[in-house]
Amino acid sequence: MDTKQIVKVSPISGFPEHLPRQRRIELRLLDIIRKQYELHGFISIETPAVERLSVLKAKEKESEKEGDVVKQIYTLGKPQVEMENEAAQTDTIPKLGLHFDLTVPLARYVAQHSNDLVFPFRRYQIQKVWRGEKAQRGRSREFYQCDIDIVGRNTLDIRYDAEILAIISEVFSALGIAKHLIRVSNRKVLSDVGAHFKLTTDQIKAIRKILDRNTNLDVEIENYFNDIKTALTVENLKFLPVIRKLLFAENITEIEKTLNLYGIESNGFTELKTVVESAKKLGCPAERLVVDLKIARGLDYYTGTVYEIFLPNEDSSICSGGRFDNLASYFSDVPYPGVGISIGLTRIMDLLGSRGLLNEEQAATPTFVLVTTRSENENLYNQSLSITKAIRQEGVPAEVFLESKPVKEQIDYAVKLGIPYVVLASESDFGEGMVRIKNMNTVSATSEVHMEVRKLAKYFATELNRENDRD
Amino acid sequence: MDTKQIVKVSPISGFPEHLPRQRRIELRLLDIIRKQYELHGFISIETPAVERLSVLKAKEKESEKEGDVVKQIYTLGKPQVEMENEAAQTDTIPKLGLHFDLTVPLARYVAQHSNDLVFPFRRYQIQKVWRGEKAQRGRSREFYQCDIDIVGRNTLDIRYDAEILAIISEVFSALGIAKHLIRVSNRKVLSDVGAHFKLTTDQIKAIRKILDRNTNLDVEIENYFNDIKTALTVENLKFLPVIRKLLFAENITEIEKTLNLYGIESNGFTELKTVVESAKKLGCPAERLVVDLKIARGLDYYTGTVYEIFLPNEDSSICSGGRFDNLASYFSDVPYPGVGISIGLTRIMDLLGSRGLLNEEQAATPTFVLVTTRSENENLYNQSLSITKAIRQEGVPAEVFLESKPVKEQIDYAVKLGIPYVVLASESDFGEGMVRIKNMNTVSATSEVHMEVRKLAKYFATELNRENDRD
Repeated sequence: MDTKQIVKVSPISGFPEHLPRQRRIELRLLDIIRKQYELHGFISIETPAVERLSVLKAKEKESEKEGDVVKQIYTLGKPQVEMENEAAQTDTIPKLGLHFDLTVPLARYVAQHSNDLVFPFRRYQIQKVWRGEKAQRGRSREFYQCDIDIVGRNTLDIRYDAEILAIISEVFSALGIAKHLIRVSNRKVLSDVGAHFKLTTDQIKAIRKILDRNTNLDVEIENYFNDIKTALTVENLKFLPVIRKLLFAENITEIEKTLNLYGIESNGFTELKTVVESAKKLGCPAERLVVDLKIARGLDYYTGTVYEIFLPNEDSSICSGGRFDNLASYFSDVPYPGVGISIGLTRIMDLLGSRGLLNEEQAATPTFVLVTTRSENENLYNQSLSITKAIRQEGVPAEVFLESKPVKEQIDYAVKLGIPYVVLASESDFGEGMVRIKNMNTVSATSEVHMEVRKLAKYFATELNRENDRD
Repeated sequence: MDTKQIVKVSPISGFPEHLPRQRRIELRLLDIIRKQYELHGFISIETPAVERLSVLKAKEKESEKEGDVVKQIYTLGKPQVEMENEAAQTDTIPKLGLHFDLTVPLARYVAQHSNDLVFPFRRYQIQKVWRGEKAQRGRSREFYQCDIDIVGRNTLDIRYDAEILAIISEVFSALGIAKHLIRVSNRKVLSDVGAHFKLTTDQIKAIRKILDRNTNLDVEIENYFNDIKTALTVENLKFLPVIRKLLFAENITEIEKTLNLYGIESNGFTELKTVVESAKKLGCPAERLVVDLKIARGLDYYTGTVYEIFLPNEDSSICSGGRFDNLASYFSDVPYPGVGISIGLTRIMDLLGSRGLLNEEQAATPTFVLVTTRSENENLYNQSLSITKAIRQEGVPAEVFLESKPVKEQIDYAVKLGIPYVVLASESDFGEGMVRIKNMNTVSATSEVHMEVRKLAKYFATELNRENDRD
């Protein structure tokens, strides 16, 4: 062998990867989410990781927050093979980038394929996204998003806003996070109340920005009013005590009372009430649902219902979404109203893990049965292979240890991987049509059982089903 | 609404995306592959899409072909947010790129995490990879690879080479490609035969390169010998008729005879024979397996067994792999021998699709039952919701049409999406605890049946199971 330079390997900051046991947890959670989405009739799409920068940046100028995300885009350098082409050399400005969310790709997909889609289009999309976040925040730069959206052409009934709430509550329960809390609001309420007290659009926008930051809300809004007090009328000033009452209201009835008290007509509130009532009808448990006008969702494309989902005693949300009047306004003249929600799985795994809320996987492998053998003993080896095949035919993951190693080492391999069952190969047993099975999860004297070879496969199929039902 | 510039949307060459029906096929194939891999006890890993360029390019100088792949790497530009940081500005050379296969990431993963892994490490990995191929070839620049590899620490029994063959044959059968053909060879045979006739390492390398191009093999090797004839001895020249016999041998017995006839001892051939015999024992059907010394596999890291899998009457392989003595030689001083195979799913879908070998999906959605309703009729609406919930509780994907549209339009939605069953909501039926079910796949008079509401959910669960069993 020639003397090679060893290339250093180490993690890249912001690009996490799992060891097998953690990866099994991730796969399990991804499977649960997918199953729930499909159970509710959502259609899978997958878009390329790569989009044109013109598409990714379409909304850039819309708001401060959008501009921030656009700054986090990873652009793609031209591969060398293209640069060797003369025409390409003259053009070195990047034209492609990695997607930073799944909403922009959805908008592009709907505009591009609208003739081939059926509306309302219920789509789910589970993919990695990339954001060049500042490293010090400890955020991932590559992470999973699991999105559902329902997109209409021209119109979309408000009941779909409610359906998303009901579904997301079921998804979280299926994930084992039964005690989540969904905070729901409607962005129009703030506009309606502001308009009632004759605030300008810009003033309302400024207040929404304060809501979105959601720190010292009370003081911040008052400070803002102090800052602009020369521009304010007596009518304007009445806004302050009312919005305070609304923001800190305990429930929807209190909000309704306040609006009535001041004679404020709010279409946004009517929508909010419909969504909450519909969501309960559609199966969202009342105790999981809280109306909270403090939920603002900075992204400007939300136009009505907005929601955020929280873990108990957790300040920042683990999932959020809402309604947008026109999803694809940058890509099409046709209005596509939509409503949806996005689960950031990578983040949820971190949170659940650090709170000890994840069921740890015992096993690092899907293998349910390891069949030991002595591969130098032809007869034994053949028997082990045929047993393994029979077990697999029942849909039970099984493997044979093919290295010529003592049985003790083979069992050690099973222990390290957390394989629940080991079949012990012995010629004398085989001669009688029997095998011994070792249950690795029991330490009692009964951990070894004798069984007829012909009954083996069905036995493991039953045990595997039992295991799966327990999950 | 302000007047917005509409951003043009159109496909990006080389970055395909599927419409819902095609995507369902892709998902089905991905599920089959994953299930087969797990059934054989392979452990899922997922590595970031992004690797250090130093890792991706570690093998660059090893061979021409490696160099070619390295030229296709998409490098990542620094996100603007990082460029605003002063330290980062001074350093504009890209350091990261998108992975172009899953073997380099596996090698890096094994070297980096070896202390946390159990060997032999059976890993599967199903991810997109990116290659900036020249567009004119019509190849995808983003595509799915579905890899399995078994990696040992220090040693790995040759029986694992055979196991991969047996597994891959099962995977292809499960994919509905029962008539695949696996061509297997061992790279050492050429070296052994060359050495017997005293050819130099460089001469053997040149011949391997000719094999790898695999066009006019016979003539090309003769031409090469003519080119270097001044350097050749009488002994060297005897190589030519022998290699011709070996390359075009009909079967392994013929190869063995030729080797014996010329008294050539070949360790490579002994390995090849063991692999073929073991593979059959492990369940690889003899009629799917052909020994073919023309299979060379250009990539230099293959050191022994090599295989390629073909569709009937197709010249280029759909899947290939082999044994490497030292997977992670660039990243670690410890030898990690491995053997594996890679399925290029995107390419297989294209091929199967164009040959009409894919079962077309009838449905664009997972929804099995659409429950119609008249959402303005509170009683009917509530009934429809509770029916849908009951159906879902049996694990059957179901949805309610929430727009206030005539039932005719709701049925039209089901037709367009290929939803197999529609439950017709009618207050008079509900009153009697009955519903009507429309089987959308039957046009006969019996396509509508009356059924008790309480029997509905179980009925659909049975029907869905029947459907799934048929696949």
